[in-house]
Amino acid sequence: MRDGDDVARLIVACPDRPGIIATLSTLLAESGANIISSDQYSTDPEGGRFFLRMEFHLERLAQRREAVEARLRSVAGEFGMDWRISVAGVRQRVALFASRHDHCVLDLLWRRQRGELDAEIVCVVSNHPDLEKHVLPFGVPYHHVPVTPARKAEAERHQLELIEGRVDLVVLARYMQVLSTEFLERVGAPVINIHHSFLPAFAGPAPYAQAHQRGVKLIGATAHYATEDLDEGPIIEQGVARVSHRDTPAELARIGRDLERVVLARAVQWHLEDRVIVDGNRTIVF
Amino acid sequence: MRDGDDVARLIVACPDRPGIIATLSTLLAESGANIISSDQYSTDPEGGRFFLRMEFHLERLAQRREAVEARLRSVAGEFGMDWRISVAGVRQRVALFASRHDHCVLDLLWRRQRGELDAEIVCVVSNHPDLEKHVLPFGVPYHHVPVTPARKAEAERHQLELIEGRVDLVVLARYMQVLSTEFLERVGAPVINIHHSFLPAFAGPAPYAQAHQRGVKLIGATAHYATEDLDEGPIIEQGVARVSHRDTPAELARIGRDLERVVLARAVQWHLEDRVIVDGNRTIVF
Amino acid sequence: MRDGDDVARLIVACPDRPGIIATLSTLLAESGANIISSDQYSTDPEGGRFFLRMEFHLERLAQRREAVEARLRSVAGEFGMDWRISVAGVRQRVALFASRHDHCVLDLLWRRQRGELDAEIVCVVSNHPDLEKHVLPFGVPYHHVPVTPARKAEAERHQLELIEGRVDLVVLARYMQVLSTEFLERVGAPVINIHHSFLPAFAGPAPYAQAHQRGVKLIGATAHYATEDLDEGPIIEQGVARVSHRDTPAELARIGRDLERVVLARAVQWHLEDRVIVDGNRTIVF
Amino acid sequence: MRDGDDVARLIVACPDRPGIIATLSTLLAESGANIISSDQYSTDPEGGRFFLRMEFHLERLAQRREAVEARLRSVAGEFGMDWRISVAGVRQRVALFASRHDHCVLDLLWRRQRGELDAEIVCVVSNHPDLEKHVLPFGVPYHHVPVTPARKAEAERHQLELIEGRVDLVVLARYMQVLSTEFLERVGAPVINIHHSFLPAFAGPAPYAQAHQRGVKLIGATAHYATEDLDEGPIIEQGVARVSHRDTPAELARIGRDLERVVLARAVQWHLEDRVIVDGNRTIVF
Repeated sequence: MRDGDDVARLIVACPDRPGIIATLSTLLAESGANIISSDQYSTDPEGGRFFLRMEFHLERLAQRREAVEARLRSVAGEFGMDWRISVAGVRQRVALFASRHDHCVLDLLWRRQRGELDAEIVCVVSNHPDLEKHVLPFGVPYHHVPVTPARKAEAERHQLELIEGRVDLVVLARYMQVLSTEFLERVGAPVINIHHSFLPAFAGPAPYAQAHQRGVKLIGATAHYATEDLDEGPIIEQGVARVSHRDTPAELARIGRDLERVVLARAVQWHLEDRVIVDGNRTIVF
Repeated sequence: MRDGDDVARLIVACPDRPGIIATLSTLLAESGANIISSDQYSTDPEGGRFFLRMEFHLERLAQRREAVEARLRSVAGEFGMDWRISVAGVRQRVALFASRHDHCVLDLLWRRQRGELDAEIVCVVSNHPDLEKHVLPFGVPYHHVPVTPARKAEAERHQLELIEGRVDLVVLARYMQVLSTEFLERVGAPVINIHHSFLPAFAGPAPYAQAHQRGVKLIGATAHYATEDLDEGPIIEQGVARVSHRDTPAELARIGRDLERVVLARAVQWHLEDRVIVDGNRTIVF
Repeated sequence: MRDGDDVARLIVACPDRPGIIATLSTLLAESGANIISSDQYSTDPEGGRFFLRMEFHLERLAQRREAVEARLRSVAGEFGMDWRISVAGVRQRVALFASRHDHCVLDLLWRRQRGELDAEIVCVVSNHPDLEKHVLPFGVPYHHVPVTPARKAEAERHQLELIEGRVDLVVLARYMQVLSTEFLERVGAPVINIHHSFLPAFAGPAPYAQAHQRGVKLIGATAHYATEDLDEGPIIEQGVARVSHRDTPAELARIGRDLERVVLARAVQWHLEDRVIVDGNRTIVF
Repeated sequence: MRDGDDVARLIVACPDRPGIIATLSTLLAESGANIISSDQYSTDPEGGRFFLRMEFHLERLAQRREAVEARLRSVAGEFGMDWRISVAGVRQRVALFASRHDHCVLDLLWRRQRGELDAEIVCVVSNHPDLEKHVLPFGVPYHHVPVTPARKAEAERHQLELIEGRVDLVVLARYMQVLSTEFLERVGAPVINIHHSFLPAFAGPAPYAQAHQRGVKLIGATAHYATEDLDEGPIIEQGVARVSHRDTPAELARIGRDLERVVLARAVQWHLEDRVIVDGNRTIVF
């Protein structure tokens, strides 16, 4: 048995009203669970929306999970709850998409190798062959799927064949192609992107060139869920670094790489730990 | 009625075991309260110590508080709970101690004037007369109590007469005298100090001179509860700022002032909101 | 004599080519000056633009300044130099514009009072009467000039009468009115504004509400020279602070106030020390 | 010819007095050099010590370097100058020392591979075999030199044989052994160490456990030159990250790894670019 096999997370979203925590914590206590941590947030105690993440330990969780879920179903209707339980010990499967830049992909692979990132990286998909030699030593399959404007739909079909139904998360680790709405609908898993600017500043292409041109004194990186509106999805995490008039666009890009990899790694880790809940175009990060 | 008169905070510390949250949240729900926010922390789910802060709304709190407290007493013994309830709408009374530096005192007075800091600043006590003219426009009494090595005990008696039993918090806003153990025992209120270094580095006098001499590349400020061991009390908040070889000790002090006032203000505000719980020599900040 | 009366700064901009530093440093050495600090920047050593700030000490500067300037004129033509000399000991005259928010105005007045900011603050101009009682204790005149859409031109004429020819710098310390192009042309002094967002994100009104709505994880503040294109002028300094989903727009504004005042204070100080050189829409900050 | 073969850096330290910059910039101009950047610092314009770094471009530098150096020798005596010239295009040779932690070693190897770090990494020396499989794909030799208390002197002799006279810099990339004074004297190259705390706080072993025990709210990392006084050498760069009461020592270590690698990488890069000058126990970083 792995560490974490008896630890689960209950994620709940529902209209706010009195009694939710009492109901859920009593339900878990009566099921024999010990609450390890609990976070909650309400957009407005009067008529707002309520969000909760409870991490609990329950001996022999595998055998008793169904009973807990049955109890949850019995109260979910009354409160109008959306809910799910995930088991900490179950490794999520992740596909990484990349282009030519290696820093985000290698950083995630290193973190996986070191045991920091508790996930199974099932493959790297890239529209270029460049990174294959760096990825293979990690024992992760590398799929080169060229993308041209003319044959983009075909490329996306190929990408979907590789990952559809096989991954719980797709991470765009500096993947420089825009994914179609059809792809995002069919992939059946959340997609996290890293944008190399402090969104909403410098959305779109070449943000470091834009930042240099505007003369900003800080540059940023933004990890967000990809949606059909490019660079407009819910933001998970952001970071910034100080720059000066001396920094050329190439130097901004170099400084930015250190930002991008840590901002993306934090967002992916939080997502895998079920800490990120999407509420419209905003995220709650517990 | 003030905003906050019907909002209270329940602070609990006890040995960790299953059922605490269920018990407390049910108790509050049955009392008619709606939980606005809830934070918890356990040093170890197996045999550790459990800490909780629940903020709740209860109509006509003033009339119903006693009933809630009676219920709490009825379960506290079983769980071995230390607990207290504080009402958000009750302004805590704060005394500020200062010497010659004005930045921390003025900053707290500005925040109070602007309504950021929800407290009553009952007086400023200083061992120098310098700041009186800056404090009086805020309508806060200024007590000049000179302190000399020979007559320190007498000075502390005078200080205690001014504040004993009249304040809920003492803030040492760059007060450059060491308070005796007797003072700390008798004052009957927590004491928050701002130390102008990143503790535990550069404890003791002249930290900016020490920092310059050691050639650090960042300077810091630390807000902590004062204890009889100088600069050793539980840390509430810390901040840092970047410096370079060009900065003289005087310039470190100038840069540090901006740190000190925001670090101290955050610590004071968190304390007043009952977000800080002391656990031995560490703090839990919810 | 004040400290700084014998210290001057030479600011130069010209096409880059070999020999500029040798020429200028020799010229200063032959004039008897000792260079205290020297900063230079070239947009491109091949055909770019060169910028220099040299701080030097020259005994009896007042008597000898004209001789130094004559030497400079004799080489400026050959190199195509724009240049100026400013004396560190001459206090620049500054007008502060404000509306109802007190934090930036009070912070600058306080830094002046402490001696941190080496300037003469000649007056505060506001379109509201609210801050008068807070400004007067600093001994600075307060001019209440109401601004309505219908009488804006008249209000600006009044403002110009108060300051035209009497100030070296105008600081918009959270002045919530847009100044007309005519005003900016006639005022005859640079104008520094603080915008309460990380520009270019959230330009325009209500940036904290915009930031909340977009769900960013960091908020920012930007000090920039005001130009006729609102929020588009050259950026001098920026800062950010971390926020979370829990922060309402009002809490973003509270957190932002601490940013705004330090970002603005740094920009004003750097400007007064002749550290900021405008190069198109970018600034060089030495 | 490599980029940088015609770019050199002149590093000077001497007693401060008027005319140094004029003399050196004229000397370089008369040699045909174009100054690309120039930084200077004086501990005190009156009787202090003066430090300078001038980067210049000189066509056919290899042939003309000797002439420039002869000119420098001719003025060095008069000014009491310590000086040296280094050619930007000459890659310095670096040995990395490591133990079991991979993050700093892999980060430096990766930066070298990307071309970010302009150095030749000649070997990795470790007292453990663990990292060999991760290092070899970078094409860098890996030397496993076990170190036991009883045979430490022998191990150091072996290490010296591997690198003595073959490297310009030794980087202790989380090397968990203390090097003897004899080693530091004989190695004939500067040694940069990364310490996993914000020095001088938490010097010595297990700094993350110490930090957890003290309850700090920020953790740090410090890159410094190694001297015979452990953790007391001149500091080159420091960084910090925010932590909370929830973070165990293991989590502090995880958060700290991201700090350590960037702080060390910056220090190494600045050293390689001749930006770091040691002045007693402090560093000047241009």
